[in-house]
Amino acid sequence: MTEQELIARLLPGLATNASVRVGAGDDCAVLDLGLPGQWVLFKTDAVMEGIHFTPDTEPARIGHKALARCLSDVAAMGGRPTQALVTLGLPRDFEIARVEAIYAGLNQLAARYDTAVVGGETIASPERTFLSVALLGTVEREKCLLRSGAQSGDGLFVSGQLGGSLQGRHLDFEPRIREAQWLAQNFEVHSMIDLSDGLATDLRHILKASGVGAELLERAIPISRAARLAARAESSSKPPLLAALTDGEDFELLFTLPAREAVRLLDGWKASFPGVPLSCIGRITSSPGLVLRNENGARSLNVHGFSHFS
Amino acid sequence: MTEQELIARLLPGLATNASVRVGAGDDCAVLDLGLPGQWVLFKTDAVMEGIHFTPDTEPARIGHKALARCLSDVAAMGGRPTQALVTLGLPRDFEIARVEAIYAGLNQLAARYDTAVVGGETIASPERTFLSVALLGTVEREKCLLRSGAQSGDGLFVSGQLGGSLQGRHLDFEPRIREAQWLAQNFEVHSMIDLSDGLATDLRHILKASGVGAELLERAIPISRAARLAARAESSSKPPLLAALTDGEDFELLFTLPAREAVRLLDGWKASFPGVPLSCIGRITSSPGLVLRNENGARSLNVHGFSHFS
Repeated sequence: MTEQELIARLLPGLATNASVRVGAGDDCAVLDLGLPGQWVLFKTDAVMEGIHFTPDTEPARIGHKALARCLSDVAAMGGRPTQALVTLGLPRDFEIARVEAIYAGLNQLAARYDTAVVGGETIASPERTFLSVALLGTVEREKCLLRSGAQSGDGLFVSGQLGGSLQGRHLDFEPRIREAQWLAQNFEVHSMIDLSDGLATDLRHILKASGVGAELLERAIPISRAARLAARAESSSKPPLLAALTDGEDFELLFTLPAREAVRLLDGWKASFPGVPLSCIGRITSSPGLVLRNENGARSLNVHGFSHFS
Repeated sequence: MTEQELIARLLPGLATNASVRVGAGDDCAVLDLGLPGQWVLFKTDAVMEGIHFTPDTEPARIGHKALARCLSDVAAMGGRPTQALVTLGLPRDFEIARVEAIYAGLNQLAARYDTAVVGGETIASPERTFLSVALLGTVEREKCLLRSGAQSGDGLFVSGQLGGSLQGRHLDFEPRIREAQWLAQNFEVHSMIDLSDGLATDLRHILKASGVGAELLERAIPISRAARLAARAESSSKPPLLAALTDGEDFELLFTLPAREAVRLLDGWKASFPGVPLSCIGRITSSPGLVLRNENGARSLNVHGFSHFS
């Protein structure tokens, strides 16, 4: 059973109330707390030793990664992060310096995005260090970007370069907070998600939530240098295109907006974020399914990205 | 190093911003999100197999306990819980029925307090099941109850009966949400905390935050039946009074208010919550320190409750 299937099974029974605009199933929960003109965004995410980092990962990078993952989810809604709480699971013989370094990495990132760290719980976790972050944010009600708004005819865009994140970028990535807010302010973005489980999987989340399909252009998919190098180094590695389609933890923005806006978008993005590539990688179609087109034609794409518990 | 000492060391470096009314150091963080007349309360709490429950604890009780702990913290501020997020760490060979039962226990409690469960993350935790809950709540700005408001001359009150919670109550306790809201609406409560680490320790948190002392009346301390039975069953057990002073996980309300209100409080409470004892267990003093008075006189109280990592 995948995490998706497990959650799908649990969802119908979850307690709810009138405040819930979007519950489980998007990057963040979207809540009406009565804040004039705004929704509140609410997200938790955890990283576990041996899964999301190793015992010898520099502790500051663990703290950075744990918060950055949540920030990336707030970014994917077009939101602004505001406050975080930290739960740190520690073996009984933990070193103070290690804990301080984890917090230093987390704090530095929090300060950069004006996010207050309003508490830290520690809990004994004898076998493995873990770090769970709960994050609040706000978003203008009219600018809140969901997975469910993609429309046939939309262009499909992705920031950055994909694949090979586990070579190192997954510990250092910069969440696309500023880029996402710029998008929400300046464009009629129809749908957005952050790439955590791989382009092929996360795009399917948009397609499913929106009831549409998509056609990807093979040559337009931006492949990271790390994915190319990994493929060259070992013959058993994924080919670079497959890595870009299926590797997890890219934490880039995947979004759709009307194709007629593409030129203005690409020009404006380049001027605002010269260090961050933006690629138009395909389009949304009315017929369901995910198709990959190259010079030989179009074929249905069956590969999936990373899936928890599989 | 205790958890308190660790957090005290980390606190000065935490990122902050203008929204923070109370950061780390009270039962919940208190936030100004711009909600007219209200603060937002934010809390996370985790329970870990082998520490807060055992491998054979009924799963519904694990779910109940995990959420109830957070609800108890919102209660201690006089607040109303609103939304929760759940992070569930699971071994790779988890049973679906067990997960569903954990959620069922949590959900049933959430529904009772009109709290929406707005998402659930699962994460692989190979050695131990754990459950971390992030909870939001709201509280009227003028009714928000902190640890720091105790005043010399206040009466000191505690709900329920103390000690022996680990005999079973820690898995089934009802958070004192309704009682706390009634207190906040009807009385000038000066300070409040929920008892998680034992009366002696948690009272010290109020005293330290408020810059005052307290005198406890030994014969007024309500000792639970479980604590008495445990003491009788084994000669190596804590004496009942010591259990009531130092056992963790009571999750009762400890609060102070002007002594002149005591009669009105005790009468009103009895009428509103006939099933829940309320005891006046002493008073707040201007001289610092914690004193226990019995028929032989007063002595300084040195025992401490449960301390994490000690």
